[in-house]
Amino acid sequence: MNPNPIQLFDTESSTFTYILNVPGTKDAVIVDPVDHNLDRDLAHIARLGLHLQIVLETHAHADHVTSAGKLRELTGAKAAVPSGCGIPPAEMQLNDGDVISFGDGETIQVIHTPGHTAGSMSYLWRGNLFSGDTLLIDGCGRTDFQSGSAEALYDSVTGKLFTLPGATRIWPGHDYKGQSVSTIGWEREHNARLANRSREDFIVLMNNLNLPRPRLIDVAVPANRNLGLPHG
Amino acid sequence: MNPNPIQLFDTESSTFTYILNVPGTKDAVIVDPVDHNLDRDLAHIARLGLHLQIVLETHAHADHVTSAGKLRELTGAKAAVPSGCGIPPAEMQLNDGDVISFGDGETIQVIHTPGHTAGSMSYLWRGNLFSGDTLLIDGCGRTDFQSGSAEALYDSVTGKLFTLPGATRIWPGHDYKGQSVSTIGWEREHNARLANRSREDFIVLMNNLNLPRPRLIDVAVPANRNLGLPHG
Repeated sequence: MNPNPIQLFDTESSTFTYILNVPGTKDAVIVDPVDHNLDRDLAHIARLGLHLQIVLETHAHADHVTSAGKLRELTGAKAAVPSGCGIPPAEMQLNDGDVISFGDGETIQVIHTPGHTAGSMSYLWRGNLFSGDTLLIDGCGRTDFQSGSAEALYDSVTGKLFTLPGATRIWPGHDYKGQSVSTIGWEREHNARLANRSREDFIVLMNNLNLPRPRLIDVAVPANRNLGLPHG
Repeated sequence: MNPNPIQLFDTESSTFTYILNVPGTKDAVIVDPVDHNLDRDLAHIARLGLHLQIVLETHAHADHVTSAGKLRELTGAKAAVPSGCGIPPAEMQLNDGDVISFGDGETIQVIHTPGHTAGSMSYLWRGNLFSGDTLLIDGCGRTDFQSGSAEALYDSVTGKLFTLPGATRIWPGHDYKGQSVSTIGWEREHNARLANRSREDFIVLMNNLNLPRPRLIDVAVPANRNLGLPHG
């Protein structure tokens, strides 16, 4: 049976943080924690009696700062990050096809899904896909900064993520419309940006979004490359 | 293994709605859906490919209107409500000790937990407790209106809910501080209102909260007694 993760939301940056844990066990992984939610996240770990083993990042975020470094200090967890995101302090530098192990035989598959950033990874655990800012519910991450590429994102989603089983649950890195979870089957058929759209059309679409520059990018990216800790 | 529910949040009334579903099956129950989130909730059911069988209410809410009636019309689900809450249109009138069945042998235990209202129920599914407005994370529901009773709430929580296994996960009806989930073990030891407090002290505490009257009570309670549908 595939347990849902525990989904936590940051109202300030509309970021989802996830706690992965097989109910009945203490072993846990946290995905994409946010700095100002450190106390909230530690409280959940305490209330559920969990042993945090790994702090997992999908990419070097431009819109919020991670609490990975502090969580690591306070819990003894290891930090695991995409090797291509320039986050040298992390113990585990992940590459496409790697398998992360935790707890009693639990495994997380690492899928390199460049496009939002060149290093972005998605993670698959027991039928649950943590898609970061690559594939969102009825949308996708932007591709116009920080080594982004519309071409790469199209290939990552259509060539890798959309080939997963249709019932795979998608837990995105953000949502701005109150949505929480979707499936590969639904997004493959209905995603407003990626379903039934040619690569050429997608590139034109993405290159004409004219989005504002993220307010926190100049602070967040350098901070996240140090796991959210001050540069010493 | 005990799967977590899918937890959805209403930012307007800070209400949690839950979708109960064993991943890998289509059968689902929704708990405490909110009227203005009808489209969001239907979208989740569609994206996950679920077959909604039961709409379950913990009580007749005073702070928001249910979408139970509309969900029932649109999906064919049955409405299940506490028998003591005066909601006559619901097919299933639940009493303490009842067992609700859905899907392939799934069962939900019905626990009468009066106190927030005289009819309030909590529901237990696979180690997950849906505690409505009876037991909240580090708190409890108010007891000063709509047949509420501090005495009854104390007895419900300490005499019934706190006797469940410590690892039981608590999924409350509301949270106002960004918390999502707790456990019986944690609340039994640490709940600010109920842990290590005598019945007498609790009654004094609750009777002196001096909370404002809920803004929507005169609209919401009559509406919820008709499953959120207009009175014909």
